[in-house]
Amino acid sequence: MMRSIFFILLFIAICVPCQDLFAQSASKPRYILAIHGGAGTILKKNMTVEMEKEYTNTLKLALSKGYEALKAGKSSVEAIAQTITILEDSPLFNAGKGAVFTNDGKNELDASIMDGANLKAGAVAGVTTIKNPIKAAIAVMQHSEHVMMVGAGAAQFAKSQHLEIVDPSYFWTKARWDALQKAKARDKERAELDHNANHTAIPEVYKDEKFGTVGCVALDRQGNLAAGTSTGGMTNKKFGRVGDAPIIGAGTYANNQSVAVSCTGWGEFFIRSVAAYQVSARMLYAKQSVEEAARGVIDEIGKMGGDGGLIALDKDGKLIMPFNTEGMYRGSVAEDGTISVEIYK
Amino acid sequence: MMRSIFFILLFIAICVPCQDLFAQSASKPRYILAIHGGAGTILKKNMTVEMEKEYTNTLKLALSKGYEALKAGKSSVEAIAQTITILEDSPLFNAGKGAVFTNDGKNELDASIMDGANLKAGAVAGVTTIKNPIKAAIAVMQHSEHVMMVGAGAAQFAKSQHLEIVDPSYFWTKARWDALQKAKARDKERAELDHNANHTAIPEVYKDEKFGTVGCVALDRQGNLAAGTSTGGMTNKKFGRVGDAPIIGAGTYANNQSVAVSCTGWGEFFIRSVAAYQVSARMLYAKQSVEEAARGVIDEIGKMGGDGGLIALDKDGKLIMPFNTEGMYRGSVAEDGTISVEIYK
Repeated sequence: MMRSIFFILLFIAICVPCQDLFAQSASKPRYILAIHGGAGTILKKNMTVEMEKEYTNTLKLALSKGYEALKAGKSSVEAIAQTITILEDSPLFNAGKGAVFTNDGKNELDASIMDGANLKAGAVAGVTTIKNPIKAAIAVMQHSEHVMMVGAGAAQFAKSQHLEIVDPSYFWTKARWDALQKAKARDKERAELDHNANHTAIPEVYKDEKFGTVGCVALDRQGNLAAGTSTGGMTNKKFGRVGDAPIIGAGTYANNQSVAVSCTGWGEFFIRSVAAYQVSARMLYAKQSVEEAARGVIDEIGKMGGDGGLIALDKDGKLIMPFNTEGMYRGSVAEDGTISVEIYK
Repeated sequence: MMRSIFFILLFIAICVPCQDLFAQSASKPRYILAIHGGAGTILKKNMTVEMEKEYTNTLKLALSKGYEALKAGKSSVEAIAQTITILEDSPLFNAGKGAVFTNDGKNELDASIMDGANLKAGAVAGVTTIKNPIKAAIAVMQHSEHVMMVGAGAAQFAKSQHLEIVDPSYFWTKARWDALQKAKARDKERAELDHNANHTAIPEVYKDEKFGTVGCVALDRQGNLAAGTSTGGMTNKKFGRVGDAPIIGAGTYANNQSVAVSCTGWGEFFIRSVAAYQVSARMLYAKQSVEEAARGVIDEIGKMGGDGGLIALDKDGKLIMPFNTEGMYRGSVAEDGTISVEIYK
């Protein structure tokens, strides 16, 4: 009698979570591509109707380009190249054309890619003349023995690969130039404050100078996952600072056994927590779902004092886009072509 | 009767592995510091008695410096700074003074550090005038808001921190210059072979151009773990290539909850497998021992076609130094001051 009750209870314990799982996977579509355009203090009250429309339209255009590529049977890496190129060519996002300025008035760009099929990866950092850094990262992955190239050497390689090289002035935009002047004025003020009061807290206004990155994750018809990230870095950055975007494991990671991840946010925290790869490690080693794993990483970054978000697409087409900021430009496209775009929490 | 036998068997199954564990921990000392000086095709038949003595003495000197620092109650980060400085100042190792040359006859150095107590980290890459890159990495960690700085910007920061700046000619050594000339001659030969035969396999002779890095892991009296790595990169490298040494998660990782790791080897594979952090992830998420985790990572890199080694010191002072090359310069010091140094398999 007792034994029968035990087996009935055991059966219930096993099957109830299973039912939940089936219910969930039946109701949710299978996603094949997702993008982000940066996370930060994005508030509806600060956004005009026109700006919101511009952002939304560009995100939709990028998603549809990626969808077309995947539908045509192209690889997830190729779909990411086409998607991120749209975002890099737009002045709206802090990547490519819209890159922010460093302290000495330059635009230094970083990008990376990882192919989940073979764990190959490519990255460039601190490049100033490559029109589309994501294409350079892909060329490093596909046509060199290396994973990461920086500075003038990376540009020389891109040139040898017949990628489009532009004059550094191509990256000049009025909005980003004005942002640098504002940041410098605040920096001066902060230096004076530091001198007078020896305070170490970073005022809220500076925080968003750290944000803005674009990224894409994709799952192609062959079942291959890939992830790519591109950024113009941090407004007013000094000392050749490099964030998480070009770091494999931190800003970008993809593995067919688990998940494709692209991150955006306060890069230093994403490097220290090896954020993108940590999502995969939690799934592979702790057997967490993509939801648990991705939220776990963002929670951990929050506890460390950092902020930002990530997009994670697992091998079964499950998508999660957690962030702990006010907003994150993000969008997704499902297998049936349904496109959705969101900005705020 | 059957139930009694079952419980007896269960008891044996639980206790036999436990006994093994106790036997092992009783017989093995608690390690507090370990170093590596690079892995590669290091064969006894290619080494003179004098050379072997020089290597051994320098490794012992580095270990004793680190031991003294820890014994005096200094932090694991401070012990690593002192230990790696000895290795960087020696022309024997591919780091600091002994850095190899790039294709265009320069010395470009990389280093990184991570503090397991707070998961803070620092790194510099592609620096050409900083005498001790490990000190610059520590300064980035302790005195900036950033984790990674590259190129001229990193040197500018190091200068602002009053670190020793040298003329690039300081890094010129005859042995490394001759190695570059040999590599260039072989490169030319290889290019011709490629052109004629379209072969893609890398001949054995080139492989060791990828190796040579120094690293240190330490556990201080406060129970804090740290890891540091420094390298001169890869002989004849082009296009601003960056390997795993300055990448947090790839070449270096430390976390008081798990382990401190420093890697050496074919950097591209260590980046793609996020090697240093993967050791920690296996321990934290898959509950593997430091032995299982570290060997698992080196095995995975071997399966991918890469080679090299790593040193891993866990929070309880357990040390493992696996590698899949012919040799790895390595050494350790236990809590009682016992120093040991090894070179071959």
